[in-house]
Amino acid sequence: MKKTATLLAVWAVAGTAAAQSSVTLFGVVDATLQHISNAGGASVSRLTNSGFSNSRLGFRGVEDLGGGLSASFWLEAGLNNDDGTGLATNSNNQASGAAPAAAGGQGLTFNRRSTVSLAGPWGEVRLGRDYTPQFWNLTIFDPYGNVGVGATLTFGSIVTGAPFTAARASNSIGYLLPGNLGGFYGQVMHYRGENASNAAGGTASDGTGTGARFGYASGPVNVALALGRTQRAGALGDIRQANIGAQWDLGVARLMGQVTSDKGSASAVAGGPALAADGHGWLLGALVPVGAGEVRVSYSQYRQEFAAADNRARKLALGYVHHLSKRTAVYTTYARLNNRGGAFATVTQGAGSPAANGSSSGFDVGLRHSF
Amino acid sequence: MKKTATLLAVWAVAGTAAAQSSVTLFGVVDATLQHISNAGGASVSRLTNSGFSNSRLGFRGVEDLGGGLSASFWLEAGLNNDDGTGLATNSNNQASGAAPAAAGGQGLTFNRRSTVSLAGPWGEVRLGRDYTPQFWNLTIFDPYGNVGVGATLTFGSIVTGAPFTAARASNSIGYLLPGNLGGFYGQVMHYRGENASNAAGGTASDGTGTGARFGYASGPVNVALALGRTQRAGALGDIRQANIGAQWDLGVARLMGQVTSDKGSASAVAGGPALAADGHGWLLGALVPVGAGEVRVSYSQYRQEFAAADNRARKLALGYVHHLSKRTAVYTTYARLNNRGGAFATVTQGAGSPAANGSSSGFDVGLRHSF
Amino acid sequence: MKKTATLLAVWAVAGTAAAQSSVTLFGVVDATLQHISNAGGASVSRLTNSGFSNSRLGFRGVEDLGGGLSASFWLEAGLNNDDGTGLATNSNNQASGAAPAAAGGQGLTFNRRSTVSLAGPWGEVRLGRDYTPQFWNLTIFDPYGNVGVGATLTFGSIVTGAPFTAARASNSIGYLLPGNLGGFYGQVMHYRGENASNAAGGTASDGTGTGARFGYASGPVNVALALGRTQRAGALGDIRQANIGAQWDLGVARLMGQVTSDKGSASAVAGGPALAADGHGWLLGALVPVGAGEVRVSYSQYRQEFAAADNRARKLALGYVHHLSKRTAVYTTYARLNNRGGAFATVTQGAGSPAANGSSSGFDVGLRHSF
Repeated sequence: MKKTATLLAVWAVAGTAAAQSSVTLFGVVDATLQHISNAGGASVSRLTNSGFSNSRLGFRGVEDLGGGLSASFWLEAGLNNDDGTGLATNSNNQASGAAPAAAGGQGLTFNRRSTVSLAGPWGEVRLGRDYTPQFWNLTIFDPYGNVGVGATLTFGSIVTGAPFTAARASNSIGYLLPGNLGGFYGQVMHYRGENASNAAGGTASDGTGTGARFGYASGPVNVALALGRTQRAGALGDIRQANIGAQWDLGVARLMGQVTSDKGSASAVAGGPALAADGHGWLLGALVPVGAGEVRVSYSQYRQEFAAADNRARKLALGYVHHLSKRTAVYTTYARLNNRGGAFATVTQGAGSPAANGSSSGFDVGLRHSF
Repeated sequence: MKKTATLLAVWAVAGTAAAQSSVTLFGVVDATLQHISNAGGASVSRLTNSGFSNSRLGFRGVEDLGGGLSASFWLEAGLNNDDGTGLATNSNNQASGAAPAAAGGQGLTFNRRSTVSLAGPWGEVRLGRDYTPQFWNLTIFDPYGNVGVGATLTFGSIVTGAPFTAARASNSIGYLLPGNLGGFYGQVMHYRGENASNAAGGTASDGTGTGARFGYASGPVNVALALGRTQRAGALGDIRQANIGAQWDLGVARLMGQVTSDKGSASAVAGGPALAADGHGWLLGALVPVGAGEVRVSYSQYRQEFAAADNRARKLALGYVHHLSKRTAVYTTYARLNNRGGAFATVTQGAGSPAANGSSSGFDVGLRHSF
Repeated sequence: MKKTATLLAVWAVAGTAAAQSSVTLFGVVDATLQHISNAGGASVSRLTNSGFSNSRLGFRGVEDLGGGLSASFWLEAGLNNDDGTGLATNSNNQASGAAPAAAGGQGLTFNRRSTVSLAGPWGEVRLGRDYTPQFWNLTIFDPYGNVGVGATLTFGSIVTGAPFTAARASNSIGYLLPGNLGGFYGQVMHYRGENASNAAGGTASDGTGTGARFGYASGPVNVALALGRTQRAGALGDIRQANIGAQWDLGVARLMGQVTSDKGSASAVAGGPALAADGHGWLLGALVPVGAGEVRVSYSQYRQEFAAADNRARKLALGYVHHLSKRTAVYTTYARLNNRGGAFATVTQGAGSPAANGSSSGFDVGLRHSF
C-alpha cells in the first residue's frame, strides 16, 4: 500500500485556468493455490485469493488547501479475484447490516475504507467507514498481518468462524493525532449504529461504539495500547475490548507480540454470534529477512470462557515470502491449529470446520501483485 | 462536477502510432453529521452522506471524430460513503426493476448516469440511463439542488417518502439541442419499460415514457419549462407532469422559484406507490454570496389531492456553505417541515416518519470534497 | 480492446525514489435500439446494450521484473449501460455460484476476467477467473464474435437459452505458450469447483474441469482445436466438449467456419439446465471490408439429440459496421432463426421464446464507443 500509481491529473477548472492535483488508483491482486484439511471434517484444494495481502481496488486523493490544511478521500474495495466478486460491507455495525448479495452477484463495495478527511497541523478528522482503533494492534503485530492461513488467532474466531474484533466500522467520526509528536501516535473513533430512537427491544444504541489507540514508535521499538466498546441491547451486553502489541527490530529479525482481552466477546460490529463469553488471546512472532525474502513465524492462542467448557485453540504458522520487486512477491505458508475443550476453530474459512477438538491445517503457494 | 481530474492518457494503438485522448475519473465524497427529529415518531443522530452534494464515483471521456463530430461516454455511480455501499438503479422504470441488493451487499451501479453519445453541430444523441427532462427544473431551481435536509418538497414525497418525479430513466434515447442557439436550450427523451408485448394485465407499456424540456438562459436570467408522461397499466393511469422554473441573479443574491403539477402522481419510474392522487408544488428560494461562502434559503410546499383529505407539507430550510477551495466545502443546514391534512412527510429519509400532521426537523454539519 | 488509455503513472515509492509504471483504464460502452420478434411468443422494442461489442469497464497493468520476467493483472467488469447495472459472475463454476443480485441491485463484478499473471520467455502462468480454452474457437471464428442478435448458435442455447459452453471459469490456473513459436499458439487451464471433500451426493468435484486449445496462425490462415471437460455429479455426467475453427483471409473477404461437439451438453460452469443430451453445431461466415466499414454474414446451426425429438435451430445473420474511428462505430444487424423438432431457441434473450418450431428475428441499430 505504500507504493501506488499516482495518476498525473490536470484540473480543468470550468472555463478558466487549470491547477495541479492528483488522484491515485491503487490495488492488490493476490491469488493462491491452497489446501485446507480439517480433522473429522472436510478438506478442500482451491485457487483462492488474498494469501499474503488482501486483494483490493481503490481510489484516493489529497488536495492541498493552503495554510497547512488539506482535504482527502479514500475509497477502497475488497476483491475476490479468484471469481471476480467484491465483498459486502456492514451498513450499521450490526448483524442486520452485513447481509451480502447472492453468491455470484456480490458487486464491489468500498467495504475496506470509505472516508473523507480534513487535516491540519492539529491532526486529522476522518468521516465514514474506517478501521476501528481496537483492530490495529492485532494486525500490525502479527507477522501475517491477519491475512491467509497463517493469520493470528487473536481475533477470536475459535468457535463460529466470525471474528470477535471487527476490523472496521461504518458511520464513524475519527480523530488522529498529527505525525510530529516525537514518536507518539494515537487516534479515537466514534461510530453509530444509527437505529431509530424508538427501535424495538431497547436496540436504539445497538452498533454504536467508541475506540481509542495510543502508541510510541522510535528506532527499533513500536508499542501500542487500544481499547474499544460496542453497544448491544439486552442480555448480550456490550462488547469491551483491550489489547496491547509491541515490536522490536533486532536487525536479524523483527520480534513481535500481542495480548488481547475481550469481554462479552461476540462482535456486534461484524454481525457475530449471540454469545457472551469472555475471551483472551496472545501471539508471539518474528519476521526474519533472508536475502530478497523473509521468513515468517508465529504462534498464537485464543481461549473463550464458556460456562460449559473452556475452549482453546493454538496455531503455529511458518512461511516464506520472496520479493520479485517492491510490488510483486511469491510466497508459501504452512499453518497448523489445535483445538481443545470443545473448540472447532479452522485455520481459515471455506472448508467447514474440524470436529470438536480436531486439528486443522493449511498450506498455500501464491502470487501477490500490487499497483 | 465542473471541476474533475482529467487523466493524461496516451492511446497505445496496436503496434503502430499513438494518438492523444482523455479519460476522466471524477467524484464527490460528502459526509455529514445529522440529527433528524420527527414529532410523534423517532429521532436519530447519525454520520451519513450527501448533505451538500450527492456522493459519487464516475468515469467519462470524449473522442473527437473530426468534422465537428464527437463520441463520448459517461458512467457515474452513486455512493454511500458512510458505509461503503453503492446505490441500486432501476432496470425497467417500474417498481419491479428497482429492487436493491441486501443491506451490506449493494455494490456500485452506474445508477446516476450511464450513457454513450454521438454529438455534432446539430446537437447530441444520447443513449442509456440518464436524467429525465422533467427532473431538471425541480433541481436546478432549488437552492439545495434536491440534496440533504433542505431539499425541495416539489418532488412530492409527502406521504410515503418515495418521490413522484423520477430523477432518471433507464433504456432511454435522448436528443439535446446544440449550445449555440443564442441562449435557448432544450432536450427530448424517450424511455422504454421493455416489457414483452404479451405481458400480463395489459402492462406491456408500463414504464415507457417521454419527456421534454425547453429553456432560455442569458445574463442574469434562466427560465425553463418541462413536460413528462410515463405509462402505467390499468386503473392507475399514466403519470403526467409539468413544471416551470426560473432564476434571476441580482448579484447580491440569486433568486429562484419553481411550480410543478403532477397528474396521477405516483411514479412508475421510481417504483412509487399505487396512488393516483394529483399533486401540486412550489418553491421560492435564494442563494446569497457571503465572502467565500453562501447562505441558502428556501421555502417549498407540496399538496396532494386525495379523496379523503387534502394532504399538504411545507418546508423551510436555512443553510450556509463555506468554500475552502473550489473542490472542498464545509456546510451546515437547518430545515423544518410542517404537515397538514393527514400528511406525514419527513425532512429526509432514514428515521421513519412523524405522526400524521406532525412536524419534522433536521440539522447537519458536513464536509464535501470533490475530485 | 487493442486501443486503451494508458494512464501515465509515477510510482511513489515510500520515502525514496520513484520508478515508472503504468495502469490502464479501459472499457466499451455499446448501446443499441433493438426489435425482437418471436413467432407464437412475444416481441419487444428496447434500448439495450452490447449489440456489437460487450460493454465493460476494466483496469489492467504490467510490471517489468527484469530478466524477461513480468507480472500483470487484469480486472474486467461487464456492464449493462442501458440501465447502469453490472453483471453477476459465477463463484464456483456451478449453478449455485451464479445467483445474481436483485433486479436493480446488481453491482459491478469482474465477471469477464479477474487474473494475476507471471510471464517469462517460457510463457505465462495465469491465476483467477478467465475465459475457458473451449470458448475461444466459438467466438473468434464467428463474424459476430458471439455478441448481439447475430451471435453464433454453436454455444448451444437452443432450448433453454442458457449456453452449454461456458465462456469463463473461476478459481482457475492456466498456462499459455509464449508468442514466439513460429505461429503455433496454445493454452491449458484447470479450474476448481471448490466444494468440500465431504459435500453431499458425491458432488465434491462438481464444477471442476480442464480445457486445452492449440492453434496455428500465419499470414492469411488461422486454425485452432480445443477440448474441455467439466465434472458433474451423478446421473448428469460430465460435460465433454470439442471444437475446431478456421479462418482464411482472401483480402476481399475473411472466410471463417467452426464445428463443435458437446457430450452431456448442459453446462455445469454457467449453471445450465439438468439435461444430458449431446449436441452438435457448425457455423460458416464472412467479414467483407467495404470502405470504412465491414459487411458481416453468418449462418449457424445447433442440433441437440434428445430421446423424444431431434431439436435443431438455424440462424442467418447479415450486418454492417461503419467505423467512425478506431474506437467508435455505428452498426446494424438483421438475424432470423428457424426452429425444428420442437426447439424454441430465440435470436437473443430478453423477449421470451417463440412457440416450439417457431421462428425468431431480431434487428438492431447501435453505437459502440471504446476507451
